[in-house]
Amino acid sequence: MTPIPTTRAACEALDAADPLRAHRDAFDLPAGVVYLDGNSLGPLPRRTPEVLRDVVSRQWGHDLIRSWNSHGWIDAPRRIGDAIGALLGAAPGQVAAADSTSVNLFKALSAALAMRPGRTVVVSEAENFPTDLYIAEGVIAQLGGRHTLVRATPDTLDAALGPDTAAVVLTHVNYRTGAMYDMPAVTARVHAAGALMIWDLAHSAGAVPVALDEAGVDLAVGCGYKYLNGGPGAPAFIYVAERHQAAFRQPLSGWLGHAAPFAFEPAYRPADGIGRALCGTPAILAMSALEVGVSTVAAAGMEALRAKSMALTSLFAAEASARCPEVQLASPSDPAQRGSQICLRHPEAYAVMQALIDRGVIGDFRTPDVLRFGFAPLYVRHVDAWDAVSRLREVLDTEAWRRPEYQARKAVT
Amino acid sequence: MTPIPTTRAACEALDAADPLRAHRDAFDLPAGVVYLDGNSLGPLPRRTPEVLRDVVSRQWGHDLIRSWNSHGWIDAPRRIGDAIGALLGAAPGQVAAADSTSVNLFKALSAALAMRPGRTVVVSEAENFPTDLYIAEGVIAQLGGRHTLVRATPDTLDAALGPDTAAVVLTHVNYRTGAMYDMPAVTARVHAAGALMIWDLAHSAGAVPVALDEAGVDLAVGCGYKYLNGGPGAPAFIYVAERHQAAFRQPLSGWLGHAAPFAFEPAYRPADGIGRALCGTPAILAMSALEVGVSTVAAAGMEALRAKSMALTSLFAAEASARCPEVQLASPSDPAQRGSQICLRHPEAYAVMQALIDRGVIGDFRTPDVLRFGFAPLYVRHVDAWDAVSRLREVLDTEAWRRPEYQARKAVT
Repeated sequence: MTPIPTTRAACEALDAADPLRAHRDAFDLPAGVVYLDGNSLGPLPRRTPEVLRDVVSRQWGHDLIRSWNSHGWIDAPRRIGDAIGALLGAAPGQVAAADSTSVNLFKALSAALAMRPGRTVVVSEAENFPTDLYIAEGVIAQLGGRHTLVRATPDTLDAALGPDTAAVVLTHVNYRTGAMYDMPAVTARVHAAGALMIWDLAHSAGAVPVALDEAGVDLAVGCGYKYLNGGPGAPAFIYVAERHQAAFRQPLSGWLGHAAPFAFEPAYRPADGIGRALCGTPAILAMSALEVGVSTVAAAGMEALRAKSMALTSLFAAEASARCPEVQLASPSDPAQRGSQICLRHPEAYAVMQALIDRGVIGDFRTPDVLRFGFAPLYVRHVDAWDAVSRLREVLDTEAWRRPEYQARKAVT
Repeated sequence: MTPIPTTRAACEALDAADPLRAHRDAFDLPAGVVYLDGNSLGPLPRRTPEVLRDVVSRQWGHDLIRSWNSHGWIDAPRRIGDAIGALLGAAPGQVAAADSTSVNLFKALSAALAMRPGRTVVVSEAENFPTDLYIAEGVIAQLGGRHTLVRATPDTLDAALGPDTAAVVLTHVNYRTGAMYDMPAVTARVHAAGALMIWDLAHSAGAVPVALDEAGVDLAVGCGYKYLNGGPGAPAFIYVAERHQAAFRQPLSGWLGHAAPFAFEPAYRPADGIGRALCGTPAILAMSALEVGVSTVAAAGMEALRAKSMALTSLFAAEASARCPEVQLASPSDPAQRGSQICLRHPEAYAVMQALIDRGVIGDFRTPDVLRFGFAPLYVRHVDAWDAVSRLREVLDTEAWRRPEYQARKAVT
């Protein structure tokens, strides 16, 4: 790895030599903004408005209902699913783009528990993204309360695995700290216990290399609106390993998951393959934007992205530690053990982030005291990481965060 | 009601005097097309591209993550839900726009069965739209098979109701025939049996007046991409009557249905009110298009739409019967007993519809032998109904449907 730069000029030099430099032009970023929140909402790809214009005005407006065939709308979940799968080390036919991450996790966990009928424990992590825990609660309640949800920690995970473990649900890259699990190793340990492994890839897809097939992962879900740049509330995805597809039965058995949706048969008969993970009619406008977003990542390649991502997070972590001793690094210090984000703790994190945003550095706050910064290497430069630390220094020096308007909390941050 | 016109000139005169005439201009309809498939995919409102341009380029592209607050993204499910509710006789706070119809039915039926714990029968209709039956199967399977799905007919519905009936799931306007249930009467009979009533309003919302609150309906779901003109695969909606909201617990307990989504609490705690029907992050691009679509209906008003709809379906049914004796009317002959569509039976219905589409009359085919024509009174004119019959007459006269290209079936029709 290139040594971490220690001056702004050195950052500029790295940016000038960056092999991913041209990819920044694929995005329509507002001038003067350092956008470090692509792990919450990826920015707008330049091509998205024109693609949406075509889908809306020509395909919907002019070709109308015929577009389900003539413009491949009906194939969108599988086509975009395969494109996402290619970023995740999944051979074609195993990923579908559909619904939300929460809905897809409901499908995956329900199916997993049905595949392990004698086992009654679901293991997750207390610090998992809450929707994963909430959905696990929902599945368990609907199954009559026979199952128990165990909230482990990374340290107690192995001890939590046993002969009763049916499935393990973990988020590969922690949303709050950026800590990343060793996917192959954890998957192997879960399999050794006879359980199924479900990975939530919300902060991994498009951010870090993932090898689902090679790691022997059973099921996975993830998000389209973060590093995949699919737009606000973009469709999510679900991965079902080919070897499990015949046994995969999920309760959201809507007509688009039927073997013959337009035969209007009276009883549900699941489609072969990944199609059975679908439920209702695909949201074509949202799917079209997601397809563009996925293509921005595919054009760069995951290995090149990972190399730059590690350089950026290392730079930011080093500079923040050197220049801002008031904050504590909440992410792993080894870049190999974290995703594409750096989290810093400060007791006034909410107000500090509001002050930073007002100074053009957009990250986000995560309760109770976390400043979260995402470094999407497609469009974030070394100078952005450098400048973000400089602005943070200003906010701390001026105590700008004390201002009442930064203290007043808003609904979403 | 105005007498049914018997000449094309009389149709032109009715269109010239039509109080809804100007509303057709709210749509971007391709020239030369008679679009009678708004019950499958509503056409493009003229305002949608500019609204989407703003949401995409300014809100997403420029304002980025801040738009969740500053542009009301986070409120979209409730705000659009209330707008839909106003078309359905539902006071504010009872409808949310979210997910697909299938996913919403899963929520509604799951919650209903939990509210009737001692009862084990779900009653639906054999001729219901299949996804409703498939979803009922999915819910029942996940609840461990304690429940039974009874597929009644309109004639055997009353006999199917009994002390074991937990919930009844019916589609208000039948997708294949257009036959419409008497919502208040059926709801009252279901309540007399102690069961909960769930209406699927896929072919009702924006098509016929509905009075959910007045009829005492318990739960309802419906579709955004048909008569609400929300675009292909638009978000759907769910209605939970206020009196049931405190007891409404649904298993798709994702973070957006939590009382405090951004507090990241470890355990699920449902939001007050209709918010608990939400699950994942709202699909903002699709929501924005839906919001425009709903506004096109609201601008006209349901009573005026219904009056014109009955005139159009009566005209088409009368002319088709008079001029095309080869087809049989499959819809109720009394306009008060049907929705906004007319279905005709012909043994070669698939090929006949393909030939009609090639002649600029777009309806759709429903297996096995149904030609389906939707009359959305916002943009369909009396001359359109007249011309559609004339083209059907031509297709039958020329036997154009025999051509091989019309016989070859496509995936979606």
